[in-house]
Amino acid sequence: MTQNIYDTAAFFAGYSRLPRSVEGLAAAPEWPTLQSMLPDLQGQRVADLGCGFGWFCRWAREAGAASVQGLDVSENMLARARETTADPAIRYERADLETLALAEGVFDLVYSSLAFHYVENLRGLFEQVRRGLAPGGRFVFSVEHPMYTAPGRPGWTRDPDGRFAWPLNRYHEEGARSTDWLAKGVIKQHRTLARYVNLLIESGFTLARLEEWSASADDVAAHPDWAGADERPSFLLMAAH
Amino acid sequence: MTQNIYDTAAFFAGYSRLPRSVEGLAAAPEWPTLQSMLPDLQGQRVADLGCGFGWFCRWAREAGAASVQGLDVSENMLARARETTADPAIRYERADLETLALAEGVFDLVYSSLAFHYVENLRGLFEQVRRGLAPGGRFVFSVEHPMYTAPGRPGWTRDPDGRFAWPLNRYHEEGARSTDWLAKGVIKQHRTLARYVNLLIESGFTLARLEEWSASADDVAAHPDWAGADERPSFLLMAAH
Repeated sequence: MTQNIYDTAAFFAGYSRLPRSVEGLAAAPEWPTLQSMLPDLQGQRVADLGCGFGWFCRWAREAGAASVQGLDVSENMLARARETTADPAIRYERADLETLALAEGVFDLVYSSLAFHYVENLRGLFEQVRRGLAPGGRFVFSVEHPMYTAPGRPGWTRDPDGRFAWPLNRYHEEGARSTDWLAKGVIKQHRTLARYVNLLIESGFTLARLEEWSASADDVAAHPDWAGADERPSFLLMAAH
Repeated sequence: MTQNIYDTAAFFAGYSRLPRSVEGLAAAPEWPTLQSMLPDLQGQRVADLGCGFGWFCRWAREAGAASVQGLDVSENMLARARETTADPAIRYERADLETLALAEGVFDLVYSSLAFHYVENLRGLFEQVRRGLAPGGRFVFSVEHPMYTAPGRPGWTRDPDGRFAWPLNRYHEEGARSTDWLAKGVIKQHRTLARYVNLLIESGFTLARLEEWSASADDVAAHPDWAGADERPSFLLMAAH
């Protein structure tokens, strides 16, 4: 199993205070783009890999999904997710994405938000997703963008014009990156954008859309602590079938 | 028509001295990767958009192509390309990629190396390529990588560890970038990686493989003037059908 940082007290406390944890999807700035990549959920059987507090699972049911299975490795997050719903069509289950085993052809949509950059065995996971999807099924996910995860020393610098610049390096050096986000020594897996695309294709998927989300100038004006976030993408979003 | 920098004397003289101009494909470091993305050319009808001196056109014939059409906007380059072959199965023709019109279904492979980042109307060009391909046809091309073309002030900096870092910014600001490469004020079109992928898909293609070429540490050791080129991708390579 990879690092389960969400079950350490300091990280969980910090994560629980993030706007997207308190207010849900509406506070996730990339959500409108990710939502636009989803199929019509009416009557669909949905899985959410790395479901966290279950915001998407509940939204999917409101959007008409027939059933939703939320999977997460964090007991803390699953406990809270279970407290927030009495809907019998939403099931939460503990699962490690490194060793996930899905039943064959039981989902119409597999969704995941910002979970796969913690996973080492992405090829195995994509093959499981392929296995779990029914014919015509869709796969929609987001991860931290490779340009964001690559640098050895992430942190904004300024170019000679005084404009924020992201110090991109180590892009082709795939593997673990240790960052101090909410807690010390959070391990994320950096991989290239080509790796995400080619693993999808090699797992039998056809890429339908790819988006690179970055903040707009208006976003940055409204959130001074986002300064620079309009200069390079933060999230990579992909839809495949 | 976009800027035809190859027909200005200073640029053409500089370009003519580049290793890839003098020695051909073997001196293009990304060629082995691009070559590995090509189909078997035996008996194929091939087009090369932005054929330059015709190195690829001649190689394609040696690799078994039935016919090769090389298209370029530069009279200088076409003149030299025509001097290098007497093969009647290779035809060179002047064409502006901004307004290219291909006959329907006449090619098995459309190829292009490092030309599309000069083109403004990429959607129109991709639609023409789609039109020009016979059923089952392939489309393989390379461009300068969006991470390479994005910055307002390109040029290596150092991170706090002393490692080369590329000052990435202006990534989502698509459009013209003026650089001083071989001549002053060379205009290239920056677009995001998502734009290349989605334009391909929207034009009816299925993405088969995507590669992000960067120099290896060994390359950099062998070419001291490439210092830093192993830290971020220089070229984006795509294969579609």
